[in-house]
Amino acid sequence: MRQATTILTIDTTRQGLVDVTDQIARWTRDQRLTEGLLTIFCRHTSASLLIQENAAPEVRTDLEAYFARIAPESREYEHDDEGPDDMPAHLRTALTQVQLSIPLIDARLALGTWQGIYMFEHRRRPHRRTLALHLIGV
Amino acid sequence: MRQATTILTIDTTRQGLVDVTDQIARWTRDQRLTEGLLTIFCRHTSASLLIQENAAPEVRTDLEAYFARIAPESREYEHDDEGPDDMPAHLRTALTQVQLSIPLIDARLALGTWQGIYMFEHRRRPHRRTLALHLIGV
Amino acid sequence: MRQATTILTIDTTRQGLVDVTDQIARWTRDQRLTEGLLTIFCRHTSASLLIQENAAPEVRTDLEAYFARIAPESREYEHDDEGPDDMPAHLRTALTQVQLSIPLIDARLALGTWQGIYMFEHRRRPHRRTLALHLIGV
Repeated sequence: MRQATTILTIDTTRQGLVDVTDQIARWTRDQRLTEGLLTIFCRHTSASLLIQENAAPEVRTDLEAYFARIAPESREYEHDDEGPDDMPAHLRTALTQVQLSIPLIDARLALGTWQGIYMFEHRRRPHRRTLALHLIGV
Repeated sequence: MRQATTILTIDTTRQGLVDVTDQIARWTRDQRLTEGLLTIFCRHTSASLLIQENAAPEVRTDLEAYFARIAPESREYEHDDEGPDDMPAHLRTALTQVQLSIPLIDARLALGTWQGIYMFEHRRRPHRRTLALHLIGV
Repeated sequence: MRQATTILTIDTTRQGLVDVTDQIARWTRDQRLTEGLLTIFCRHTSASLLIQENAAPEVRTDLEAYFARIAPESREYEHDDEGPDDMPAHLRTALTQVQLSIPLIDARLALGTWQGIYMFEHRRRPHRRTLALHLIGV
């Protein structure tokens, strides 16, 4: 049984979903395991992770619009130190997740045909984000 | 340390929660480990996983009604290729999760007394769904 | 490769977020591993886990107020056996999560600077809660 860890850096340019599937699959492949478990951990409270459809781009537009609607900027929050997109970013992070684990089977991540891995940037301005990756297996 | 993986197939007949606890506990038991970690990964973007109360059936009725209300079919989405239940299915998947990991202690999944494992089918028509399972331990 | 498991008991006194970071980090440190994966599993359907900002306390006030608003007590639910805070507790658990896994790198949990681990008590009265912990690594 072997393990590997790394920190991936993602520079975001805008609010919304960033496809990180290739970057994560490439690092996983480089570890040359055939069976195991990959864990992705987002080290932030205003960005999160989401597995979603990688085909129709409208799904991502609708997802972004939906989260903007159920955790809106327009409400008055007690916490607004960093502007109106600050507290909604924490809420959208809470509603999605900061961690995902995906089995590795036959040297491939067991993602479904339509599944992509996305980092969800909830702040308006560009941010440097880091993901901690952990892989265990044989 | 040992590992095992499998793909479980779940045929859903309707929108809503499907109890998969027994099927998952049985496969786990068959691997004959006493301490470890089980990971369940749902390979879809319009079905998800949820741990919820396994006693009162009204909890599940209320849960289904709640998700139908906060991510409703009636709204206009950009993405509706597969009908009005298409985009809400993606949203309800995003609000719940596609992955769960449960510790195995003394040869039993560490579920609480009232916890059951459910697959949440978000589409109206029957679907063949697959879950990837990974177990590691001794 | 080694494993360790334990059950942590958390006595809650009120509805809201309880910081469990220190208790979890201490147990993890006591296992004396340098690289691995920690999994936390909340064994309840009316309490959940959340990673959120550990600095400004207003973030937690706003989070609690937000979940009280999107899964309110005032609605009529079919399930209300244990009072008006019963069903909303299940909904808020479903919207957040009952499991978190965090990589261990260089003998430290790979939490970001502003991330704390919280147990989210959704019931009004005090409860004795248990978390199952699993750690694997070297």
